[in-house]
Amino acid sequence: MSVFIDACRRKEAEYTPVWFMRQAGRYLPSYRSLKGSRNVLEIAKDPGLASEAVVGAVRELGVDAGIIFADIMLPLEGMGVKFRIEEDVGPVVSGPIRTPDDVSQLKDFDSRSDAVEVYEGIDETVRKLDGTPLIGFSGAPFTLAGYVVEGAPSRELERTKMMMYDDPDSWKALMGKLTSMVESYLDRQIKHGVDAVQLFDSWVGCLSPADYDRYVLPYTRKIIESIGGRVPTIHFCANSGPLIERFQSTKADVLSVDWRVAVDDVWRRCADRVGVQGNLDPVVAAVGGETMRRQTGDILQQAQIHRGHVFSLGHGVLKVTSPSNLKQLVNIVHEKTRSRK
Amino acid sequence: MSVFIDACRRKEAEYTPVWFMRQAGRYLPSYRSLKGSRNVLEIAKDPGLASEAVVGAVRELGVDAGIIFADIMLPLEGMGVKFRIEEDVGPVVSGPIRTPDDVSQLKDFDSRSDAVEVYEGIDETVRKLDGTPLIGFSGAPFTLAGYVVEGAPSRELERTKMMMYDDPDSWKALMGKLTSMVESYLDRQIKHGVDAVQLFDSWVGCLSPADYDRYVLPYTRKIIESIGGRVPTIHFCANSGPLIERFQSTKADVLSVDWRVAVDDVWRRCADRVGVQGNLDPVVAAVGGETMRRQTGDILQQAQIHRGHVFSLGHGVLKVTSPSNLKQLVNIVHEKTRSRK
Repeated sequence: MSVFIDACRRKEAEYTPVWFMRQAGRYLPSYRSLKGSRNVLEIAKDPGLASEAVVGAVRELGVDAGIIFADIMLPLEGMGVKFRIEEDVGPVVSGPIRTPDDVSQLKDFDSRSDAVEVYEGIDETVRKLDGTPLIGFSGAPFTLAGYVVEGAPSRELERTKMMMYDDPDSWKALMGKLTSMVESYLDRQIKHGVDAVQLFDSWVGCLSPADYDRYVLPYTRKIIESIGGRVPTIHFCANSGPLIERFQSTKADVLSVDWRVAVDDVWRRCADRVGVQGNLDPVVAAVGGETMRRQTGDILQQAQIHRGHVFSLGHGVLKVTSPSNLKQLVNIVHEKTRSRK
Repeated sequence: MSVFIDACRRKEAEYTPVWFMRQAGRYLPSYRSLKGSRNVLEIAKDPGLASEAVVGAVRELGVDAGIIFADIMLPLEGMGVKFRIEEDVGPVVSGPIRTPDDVSQLKDFDSRSDAVEVYEGIDETVRKLDGTPLIGFSGAPFTLAGYVVEGAPSRELERTKMMMYDDPDSWKALMGKLTSMVESYLDRQIKHGVDAVQLFDSWVGCLSPADYDRYVLPYTRKIIESIGGRVPTIHFCANSGPLIERFQSTKADVLSVDWRVAVDDVWRRCADRVGVQGNLDPVVAAVGGETMRRQTGDILQQAQIHRGHVFSLGHGVLKVTSPSNLKQLVNIVHEKTRSRK
């Protein structure tokens, strides 16, 4: 097995594994030349290019895992959602989903015919990675609901919350449909060979703990249950401080947190019964130098007495980041944690 | 004394006081007609209009405090920052402050000649309010730095953090100048008769606890110290969950928190040695009805065994809110808490 999977399973790992969200991204010259003028969806739907992007980043940075190249919105095409991905903005949905009618017209996702390019990309990536673990992923229902209800990236997700509070029947129907999609999308990814899955509930930190319990938790729990421990599950949320205990109760193996909450605080609040992924601020990785070295040292020191640390950034790599900073970061983490043994 | 000040001082209050951030705002027809085509700064600099806006909202809603009508950016004019306030966007700075030179060229704020319209507005508002307490306010140094460094509202404040990490001398100089400004701006507000002050460190929740300690806390502490208990101080931060204990250590009398953290959790973590302001989600106030009634009841129940609750929203009133919802909310809070005595 690999150090990455060992860490996800909270086994003794030889050293602390590292990978970065958006490690195959525009900060990387080799990715920019692969990308050319293509948009993200065109690459994601081309198994040759998608696998090349994943493997290129893994080899260049020396990280311990790759993540499939896809967009969080991609499987929604199969449900009939119309959208485009605008560079530097994000997904823009034409015809947002807001009324009971909008919700009832969403099609059921069919994993035999929808997002098939993603599964083909997984086949090809697994071959090329030659043993390095591959992480599959999906957006979580709340975060996907946020995109389709708002229609565009939004700071406070006001319309989404309004549907949640004001039209609970539509909310349940929408969350139910999205949950079914995520279950079958991840199931198919696992069957094609991903070694772990990460569920991105990136924006759910905008809810109160009580609302999270009422409107989101049952759906997330159902998804994790459907995976049934076949591969480790990683739950990601930006800004997750107040919800840590709730995320643990989803039974995810690993909680991926950002820099707003200290990693040792996560272990403490979860009585060490969870893996923790994170949590350097991506701005610090972009700044590099002494600040990066010091803050990385702090995180590793907090993690030292706990099992199940996957080092990562608290969010995706910033476009302005120099790849040499990330290579240095990988080396720092590997060297410092190897020498402890 | 008033119930509002009693609550801020954690004295037994006759009932739980209520006020709302942005209670004099565009959701309110009387404010819209007072505003006409004027921008926010024009109103803020006209003591007659500014006091009218404050008092109009207090009378219409039946709240227990008014807040001075000003913009967080206003005192920065005195320091030579050039900006405009764009409706539905926020402050846009022409010539953001990013280099050591930019910082050194910032002028010292002179409370005898800068923002004088605000102090005149306070005089007139105090007269018209006739005993209802008036809250003064200022942006806190970090949040103001965020605006002047980014140049426009930003989700992650990346440039601000880059200066903080990469150019600590400029950061210290900028924070020092902003701190001096806030001290003398608030001092002058207090001398003109405000009964409490609220410090808006709205965006500081984007920092890790360690970075907050290192780069922000000393400045905030210095400001609270400069007020020296003359009036109660309220510390506001959106998304403040992980930083609660730090905010308490600034010696602010009241922590204003949003819905992401439960109010009883704040009291628990601060051993009841703080007042708590909040924390209904403004979306819930916009939705109204049963959801608003239920969630308000939850907050009041959590607060029941603690002293020092000021009921409020977790953030400003949304433009889509019906004023009748807010009036109902004020009544619910007053009635439910009065009947307990």
